[in-house]
Amino acid sequence: MEVFEFLEGTEREELLASFTDTEVAAIIEEMSDDDRTALFDELPAKTVKKLLAHLSPEERKLANALLNYPADSAGRIMTPEFIDLKESMTAAKALDRIRATAAKKETIYTSFVVSPERKLKGTVHLEDLILASPETAVTDLMDELPVFVSTDTDQEEAAATMSKYDLQTIPVVDREHRLVGILTFDDILDIVQEEATEDFEKMAGISPVDESYLDAAILTLTRKRFTWLLVCIVTQLFSSFILAHYSFALESVVALAFFIPLLTGTGGNTGTQAATLVIRGLTVGEITKEDVHKVITKEIISGLLLGGALALLASLRAWSMGTGYGVAATVAVSVAGVVMLGNLVGAFLPFVAKRFNIDPAVMSGPFITTVVDIMGLLIYFEVARRVLVLG
Amino acid sequence: MEVFEFLEGTEREELLASFTDTEVAAIIEEMSDDDRTALFDELPAKTVKKLLAHLSPEERKLANALLNYPADSAGRIMTPEFIDLKESMTAAKALDRIRATAAKKETIYTSFVVSPERKLKGTVHLEDLILASPETAVTDLMDELPVFVSTDTDQEEAAATMSKYDLQTIPVVDREHRLVGILTFDDILDIVQEEATEDFEKMAGISPVDESYLDAAILTLTRKRFTWLLVCIVTQLFSSFILAHYSFALESVVALAFFIPLLTGTGGNTGTQAATLVIRGLTVGEITKEDVHKVITKEIISGLLLGGALALLASLRAWSMGTGYGVAATVAVSVAGVVMLGNLVGAFLPFVAKRFNIDPAVMSGPFITTVVDIMGLLIYFEVARRVLVLG
Repeated sequence: MEVFEFLEGTEREELLASFTDTEVAAIIEEMSDDDRTALFDELPAKTVKKLLAHLSPEERKLANALLNYPADSAGRIMTPEFIDLKESMTAAKALDRIRATAAKKETIYTSFVVSPERKLKGTVHLEDLILASPETAVTDLMDELPVFVSTDTDQEEAAATMSKYDLQTIPVVDREHRLVGILTFDDILDIVQEEATEDFEKMAGISPVDESYLDAAILTLTRKRFTWLLVCIVTQLFSSFILAHYSFALESVVALAFFIPLLTGTGGNTGTQAATLVIRGLTVGEITKEDVHKVITKEIISGLLLGGALALLASLRAWSMGTGYGVAATVAVSVAGVVMLGNLVGAFLPFVAKRFNIDPAVMSGPFITTVVDIMGLLIYFEVARRVLVLG
Repeated sequence: MEVFEFLEGTEREELLASFTDTEVAAIIEEMSDDDRTALFDELPAKTVKKLLAHLSPEERKLANALLNYPADSAGRIMTPEFIDLKESMTAAKALDRIRATAAKKETIYTSFVVSPERKLKGTVHLEDLILASPETAVTDLMDELPVFVSTDTDQEEAAATMSKYDLQTIPVVDREHRLVGILTFDDILDIVQEEATEDFEKMAGISPVDESYLDAAILTLTRKRFTWLLVCIVTQLFSSFILAHYSFALESVVALAFFIPLLTGTGGNTGTQAATLVIRGLTVGEITKEDVHKVITKEIISGLLLGGALALLASLRAWSMGTGYGVAATVAVSVAGVVMLGNLVGAFLPFVAKRFNIDPAVMSGPFITTVVDIMGLLIYFEVARRVLVLG
C-alpha cells in the first residue's frame, strides 16, 4: 500500500487495471484520504466513478466532500484525519484520546482543540502534552491564535503560509471557522514542486501539462505548446509589416538587415531576464505590487549600463564589417534602446498581470520577446531613417 | 528570537547593526544551529568573524564544524541538535531521555539510535515509543534501514530524497556512517524554493543572485545578467556575418528581410519551450539521461505538427503581402525547418549539459534562442537561394 502511494500517475493506472475489482477496492479503501483525492484527480472521470463505487458509504461521503472543493484549493487536498480535542480536557485525557485514535490519523504531533460547534479554538503539540503535568488543562497548553487557511484558499498560498511560519501542519476551516481538515508537510512539498513546474511551463509559453513529460501524449504536449506559438506568430506578422513599410531603407542600405537578428535577439534576452527576476520575485513574495516604482527605477539604471556596454560591442562589430559610421551609429543607438525597452517591458508586464489578478508567470518569455521584437524594429528603422537621412 | 529567524537577510543585518555587542551575542547564542549557519552564510566574512567571537567556545566549535562543509551541502545546513538513543534502551528509558533533552532539540518526533561508535543504527518515532509497552526494546521499535544522506550530499538532492519518501527529518552521516546531524522539514522547504529560483534565473541567462531582487545592488544584478548577454551578442555576430554573406539575395529580393524576425522569433520560442520541458523533467527526475531517444522522437513528431501548422500560417501571410510564391514557399519551408531545429536543439542541449555533469538549467533560453537564430538564418537563405534561384 505504501509503495502504491509513491508510484507515478501512469504506473498507478496500469497497476490498477491489472487488478480485479475486489483487489482495487481493498487498495483504494486503505489509501489515506488526501492521496486518494490526488489519485482520483489524475484519473479519467469515468474511472473515478467506478472507483468511488468501491468505497464504503462512509468513505465515499468523505471522498466526495474532498472532491467538491475547487481545483487547486486547500479543501481539495486536505485530510479530515486529524485529532480533535475538547476544551475541557486535561493533558492526560488528551494523551488517552491521542493513543486511542492515533492509528487512523495523518499526524499525532499536532492536535486541534475545537468548541462544541466544531469551531477551531487552538492547536496543541504532542511535545507540550507529554512534558506537562497530567492535570494541566489543554486550554493552558494550546496556541490560541494558530495560523490557519480556509477551504477555498489556493493551495499555492497555503504552501507559502506553511513555509513562512515553518509549520508541519496547518488547520483548514470553512466559512463559519469550523475545523474541517488539515494540510500536512508532505502535501506542501508536492505542491511547491508542482507549482514551480507550472511556472516554468507558463514562462516558456506552455499551458500547464498535468502529466510528466514522458507520460504526456505527443498531441497533448503539442496542443499545450501551440497556443502561445500561435499568439506569437500572429503578433510577429506586425514585424513583417513594419519591415515592408521600411523596405525603402533596406533597399538603399542593405547592411541594415545584417543586424536585425542581433537587435531582436538582444531585446528578447534582456526582456526575458527582467521578466524572470520580477515574476519570480512576485511569486515568492519578495516583490509586492507596491514595489513597481523601485523595480522600474532599478531596471532603468541597469538598462543604461547593459545597453551602453552591448551598444558599444555591437557598433564596433558593425563598423569593423565596413558598414560605415551611419549604420554603426544606428546599431549603437538601437541596441541601447532595445535593451532599455526589454528591461521596461519585461519588468512592467508582470505587474500588469498581477494587477488584473492573473498569474504574472503568463507573461512568458516568448510573449515578451515578441513584443520587444516589434517595438525594437520600429526604433531601429526610425533611428536609421534619421541618422542615414533616408525616405 | 523566533521573530528574528523569520526576517529577511537585509532586515536581519540592519537589526543586528542597531544592537550593542552584548545584545547581538545574546541573540546569536539563542538561535538554532542551522538558522545561525544560514545567517552567517548571508553576512560578509568580516561580520561573521566578529559574530563568531560572541559565541561560547562550545557554540563556536559547533558553528565552525557546520561552516566547514562545502556550500550547498547537507553538512552545511544540518543541525546537530537531534535526540540520540542507545540500542540497549527500553521504550520507557527512551521517553525519559526525550523528556530530559527535548528543550534543546530541533525535533522530538524522531529519535536516532546509534552504536557506541556513534554509527547510525536506526530511527524511532515518538508515536511508536508512546504506543508501545514501556518494556519494549528500542531496537524492536526502530526502523533498521532508515533513509539517510551524507554530509557532502548536495542540499538539492537531500531535499529531493526527503520529498520522495515524505520524510520530516533525515539523518546526515559522515564517511564512516557516524550520525553527525539531521535535516528537518523547514530546511527543505527553503531549499526547494531557493533551488527553483536559481533554476529560473539560470534558464533566463542570469547567474544565480544570492539576495532577493529588491535587496540586490543594481551593479550586482547587472553583472549577473551581463555574462550571458555578452555570450549571446558575441554569438549573434555570426548572424550579421551570415546576412552579409547573403546580401546578394537580400538585394535581389528585399522581401526576404521581412520575415527574418518572424523566423528567428519562432525558432527561439519553440527552442525555449522544448528546453524548458526537458530541463524541468531532468531536474525533478521525471526524465533521466537514458530517455534521450524517447525525448528526441517526441520532439521530432511534435516539431512536424507545430512546424506544419506555423509554416502554413506564415506562408499565407507572406503570400497575402504580395511577395510572390517563391518567397511564400521559402518562408513555409524555413519556418517548418526552424521549428524542428528549435525542438531538437532545445531538447538535446540539456542532455549534453547533464552528460558533462553541468546543471541542465544553464542551457538557458537566451543561449538556445541565439543558437537557433543563427542556424535558422542559414536554413532560410539556403532555401531562398535554391527556391528563388539566386546567387
